Amino acid sequence: MKACIIGASGYTGRELVKLLLKHPKIELTVVTSRSLAGQKLDQIIPQVADHSNDLVFSNPGIEDLSNREELEIFFLALPHGTAATYAVPLLEAGKKVIDLSADFRLRSSATYQEFYGEEHPAQSLLKTAQYGLPELHQLSWEKSNLIASPGCYPTSILIPLAPLVHAGNLVQLQDIVINSMSGISGAGRNASEKLLYCERNENASAYGLPKHRHLSEIEEQLSSFAEKSVVISFHPHLAPMNRGICTTISVKATDNSALSAIYDVWKQTFMDRPFARILETGSFPEVSHVVGSNRVDFSAHFDSRSQRYIICSAEDNLIKGAGGQAIQSMNICEGFDETTGLL
Amino acid sequence: MKACIIGASGYTGRELVKLLLKHPKIELTVVTSRSLAGQKLDQIIPQVADHSNDLVFSNPGIEDLSNREELEIFFLALPHGTAATYAVPLLEAGKKVIDLSADFRLRSSATYQEFYGEEHPAQSLLKTAQYGLPELHQLSWEKSNLIASPGCYPTSILIPLAPLVHAGNLVQLQDIVINSMSGISGAGRNASEKLLYCERNENASAYGLPKHRHLSEIEEQLSSFAEKSVVISFHPHLAPMNRGICTTISVKATDNSALSAIYDVWKQTFMDRPFARILETGSFPEVSHVVGSNRVDFSAHFDSRSQRYIICSAEDNLIKGAGGQAIQSMNICEGFDETTGLL
Amino acid sequence: MKACIIGASGYTGRELVKLLLKHPKIELTVVTSRSLAGQKLDQIIPQVADHSNDLVFSNPGIEDLSNREELEIFFLALPHGTAATYAVPLLEAGKKVIDLSADFRLRSSATYQEFYGEEHPAQSLLKTAQYGLPELHQLSWEKSNLIASPGCYPTSILIPLAPLVHAGNLVQLQDIVINSMSGISGAGRNASEKLLYCERNENASAYGLPKHRHLSEIEEQLSSFAEKSVVISFHPHLAPMNRGICTTISVKATDNSALSAIYDVWKQTFMDRPFARILETGSFPEVSHVVGSNRVDFSAHFDSRSQRYIICSAEDNLIKGAGGQAIQSMNICEGFDETTGLL
Amino acid sequence: MKACIIGASGYTGRELVKLLLKHPKIELTVVTSRSLAGQKLDQIIPQVADHSNDLVFSNPGIEDLSNREELEIFFLALPHGTAATYAVPLLEAGKKVIDLSADFRLRSSATYQEFYGEEHPAQSLLKTAQYGLPELHQLSWEKSNLIASPGCYPTSILIPLAPLVHAGNLVQLQDIVINSMSGISGAGRNASEKLLYCERNENASAYGLPKHRHLSEIEEQLSSFAEKSVVISFHPHLAPMNRGICTTISVKATDNSALSAIYDVWKQTFMDRPFARILETGSFPEVSHVVGSNRVDFSAHFDSRSQRYIICSAEDNLIKGAGGQAIQSMNICEGFDETTGLL
Repeated sequence: MKACIIGASGYTGRELVKLLLKHPKIELTVVTSRSLAGQKLDQIIPQVADHSNDLVFSNPGIEDLSNREELEIFFLALPHGTAATYAVPLLEAGKKVIDLSADFRLRSSATYQEFYGEEHPAQSLLKTAQYGLPELHQLSWEKSNLIASPGCYPTSILIPLAPLVHAGNLVQLQDIVINSMSGISGAGRNASEKLLYCERNENASAYGLPKHRHLSEIEEQLSSFAEKSVVISFHPHLAPMNRGICTTISVKATDNSALSAIYDVWKQTFMDRPFARILETGSFPEVSHVVGSNRVDFSAHFDSRSQRYIICSAEDNLIKGAGGQAIQSMNICEGFDETTGLL
Repeated sequence: MKACIIGASGYTGRELVKLLLKHPKIELTVVTSRSLAGQKLDQIIPQVADHSNDLVFSNPGIEDLSNREELEIFFLALPHGTAATYAVPLLEAGKKVIDLSADFRLRSSATYQEFYGEEHPAQSLLKTAQYGLPELHQLSWEKSNLIASPGCYPTSILIPLAPLVHAGNLVQLQDIVINSMSGISGAGRNASEKLLYCERNENASAYGLPKHRHLSEIEEQLSSFAEKSVVISFHPHLAPMNRGICTTISVKATDNSALSAIYDVWKQTFMDRPFARILETGSFPEVSHVVGSNRVDFSAHFDSRSQRYIICSAEDNLIKGAGGQAIQSMNICEGFDETTGLL
Repeated sequence: MKACIIGASGYTGRELVKLLLKHPKIELTVVTSRSLAGQKLDQIIPQVADHSNDLVFSNPGIEDLSNREELEIFFLALPHGTAATYAVPLLEAGKKVIDLSADFRLRSSATYQEFYGEEHPAQSLLKTAQYGLPELHQLSWEKSNLIASPGCYPTSILIPLAPLVHAGNLVQLQDIVINSMSGISGAGRNASEKLLYCERNENASAYGLPKHRHLSEIEEQLSSFAEKSVVISFHPHLAPMNRGICTTISVKATDNSALSAIYDVWKQTFMDRPFARILETGSFPEVSHVVGSNRVDFSAHFDSRSQRYIICSAEDNLIKGAGGQAIQSMNICEGFDETTGLL
Repeated sequence: MKACIIGASGYTGRELVKLLLKHPKIELTVVTSRSLAGQKLDQIIPQVADHSNDLVFSNPGIEDLSNREELEIFFLALPHGTAATYAVPLLEAGKKVIDLSADFRLRSSATYQEFYGEEHPAQSLLKTAQYGLPELHQLSWEKSNLIASPGCYPTSILIPLAPLVHAGNLVQLQDIVINSMSGISGAGRNASEKLLYCERNENASAYGLPKHRHLSEIEEQLSSFAEKSVVISFHPHLAPMNRGICTTISVKATDNSALSAIYDVWKQTFMDRPFARILETGSFPEVSHVVGSNRVDFSAHFDSRSQRYIICSAEDNLIKGAGGQAIQSMNICEGFDETTGLL
């Protein structure tokens, strides 16, 4: 199957290139980038030089791309707002689209406007897009040709937490407090002083709180799983490492809940899911254990003193939190084995 | 004034050596270490080689030390349990003692036993020891010759939070959730596989929750400031950097509270305190801004959606969180300027 | 083909496990470790948890292993000295052995004794073992069932340099000066104070010079390619990163040499070799471009002022410098595509 | 004494600010920066927030500065080329100037033009400027009001090497090969993609060879000390750490030389110099031992096989390699103790 990546200059786009070049069922045929057009892929992304390929970044118009019949599937690794302007004509041309931006992750255009500060550019698509979190949603091209690949933070949070709020009387929905720390690639590949090596090395800090954009997505999903409105506190941080997210969720127990019930829900939800690994209580997920993998590791702990559960998770923000999960979604929709190209 | 450091082989002890060698009012005369006895200080701690000194690690008996009249003040950088066995005879000999271990941080010997797993070795001293957090407690040799220097996490938490719980109806005392990430030196200088460079580099994880030992100290102090029992959730993490703690506190607003009231309390509490720096809301303390300093930076943010305040702080775990704060306490008790040797 | 790794607790052994589990032609059946026997592989090496496997570390006797008929190929990831004691009975039992230690890299037992400080434990094998550097040596099971996989530093040096000294009058053989810096995994997985995170982070230094053990291997190979004795200067350093080697070779020009002649030799030698990437002059190999890959990148520069060539190379010390190269050698001997399991 | 720093936005300028604010004999009165004018110093350089000061970055004209009588000494932390345009009027106004750029480090304007690609802007000053390496040159305001503070690489190389080439028949002047690795701050505070955290972390590479600009300065100084022309090979590298330089020098022995003779020369040259620390052979200088200090550590090793000495050194590139050394030079010229403000 022939695939195209639109906008491959950032960290997400580059990771997608690496992953798709290794994918046995995909032929990566077109990789676009405005700024890199004309340059050889293996000059810009030397990590793929092992793969003999002659790919060159190009910058074709969206019409040209839509008209190329052999291209079946498009991955959009573009800024939000821009992504929608590509998605619309591609979908009209009958293409399959997996969007890694925030443009189609929300159902509510009002929430989009609140958190992204501009009117949604293609509101009608919000209703039909699939939220591409395969451990929690059943994905199928029959539902829609548009998959919205989740954000990195939401992935690390929703996988362990959504089944618990869905289970009903297992955890309280009030006073959920979530802290995450992300590797620096999460901030993107922007030549800004704040992201220079000497500014982030030997450094750590919170940022973007109390209303980080991913909050909108986390709450909308949690509310959907809980079938009532969930408001959370979310505190993102930067930690000095290239990749990875380490998330710690604090959620209040209900009168009847038990740690074993949490593990039961997890076991049932993630039975046979290759990329969700449940660790036993007392074992803490480590970023280095999941970097390079499409896996989320997570465990739960009960604090009897505060009557709270503490759920810890770890993932690679560029794989499970971005390109890897996009490919996992594609694998499922295409009927490939879920792990194809991801081991 | 002649000073002695007992147990200078760890990161805390080494930092104390560096700081005391620069202190204009202190003559560091004796530095002990069982494992390093006989070795020159500047061979083991090359960072102090600029200071011309002929100090050699020694390993005298506690009696010898107690009998040396010229030694006025002792810093204990020993493991908990061991520290008390030194403190007792030194105090009996009329020495001033600043203990950097956990042995005298708690008032309750029951809490000590619960969190440290052994009976407290010198319970009578628990009542008299001063908790050496100079921004929150008035310190004086007249109160006691024994200062218990606070833990690194508690320092980063108590300075911004204690005045708020003390203020009465400003924040709720329930559902306080605190996340911290510490540089690796916080785990000590132990030759264990888990602390090898390749194991901690490019890695991050929670650890020690839900009942990290520092929790006992945080809660006891908060309860004392609140004048009622406070139970919190505390989640420590390791982040890949040598030094520094980044703390994020989530605390619920009361009906009448306001962000401005928090800042008012802080301004009043920390007016003229050189090592407590209040940042305006929207500004996030960064570890790199306080590493090498005895300062804590902190700011507060209001999340109207969850009706919670988010308080962020940063400190150097080995300075404000250990050796620097010990010296600051000594400065105050001795009547030196609070910042002597710390700028 | 069924394979066994003997001694998989170190960084090299763990990397081999990861690579062989992904290898489509290999079934990794036995993984031994004295210290880890009885533990599940994916508990100890969580990076392989994506691969559904039930492997458990075991600690069978060497006789048992030799007698297991289904096991065809053995990878030894053991300390030098120990490796030989396993290789001898395995070879006698007709097994194929790829040794990643230093035990069979040298032809001269006197050199072994000089550099490793003990008599060689199996001198007769020194003559027959193949030096497993596939870009420079033709490998075949017909030559020997024993492959000595090269050291990490030698690999980064020999690939670009050996063809040049072999070419005759292209570079001078005197006054070759080689500096390398290695990631910390090169020092092994030993719980020593010197390798703690806080000791190596934000640090760099030379070590082990002037007579690092790998020097013996580099010189013996260079002498063999030059057909006369070559004595070099080799200066290894540690740099604060998990993986990777960055090597800079300074070698004097001859009267007739030219940069273009160097590139001509390289193009000829490495034509169609997938894991040797020649960069043009003025382009500097970067460790981050080869980490995770089995590739060596290298380029040459002419300094007309000192009449010297400067050759720069980069590799992943645990892949091309260890486990990856071992698999590449196996692939070639087995008639698999050279890149099988390595892309 | 009142001092002014011109151009304090880069890493060197910021370090100077930190050091001068601690200097007991200096009152830092004016700190200029085009881009930061109007902002408070402790907002931009939070590390100095401990020092109560009301300094604000300003951007006065050079005439204004020259006319301010109370300002006695000026530190220029400007790009080369620009520095000279400030130095000329300041010197004409009778000010003392310490320039941290490359503008006055060379005696030869032809060499300047060759290495910096433009005509020297104030050639007459090249003859009078003092090269501010206090361990090797006697500095005095009587010689000149202009001090050219050396480059970071040259400092780490010249301190150990210059006395040896000066000693006559101790080492050969041909075939000197020098490799250095520098922390990333050496590349400056420029918002370029290449210096982003994720690009330099877990990475290492050579750069700028064979003709790095500092080469001109190293060779001119070595030639001057040797009293004959010295041509060297110099290979700079970047290593993933904030600060520090680790240098390894390979130099051929003469017939009569001996390691002990090298140490004798060093002991004589550096007797009583507080910032030059000689380590014994077999001991390797470590970057972490000198970071934060104005010291250079160095040691020598003899390789009998190649008949070469290997000299290793380490320094903090921003202190001994820049701001610290500038202050050390000032201390000496002003008759202060050499270490004032630098311990």
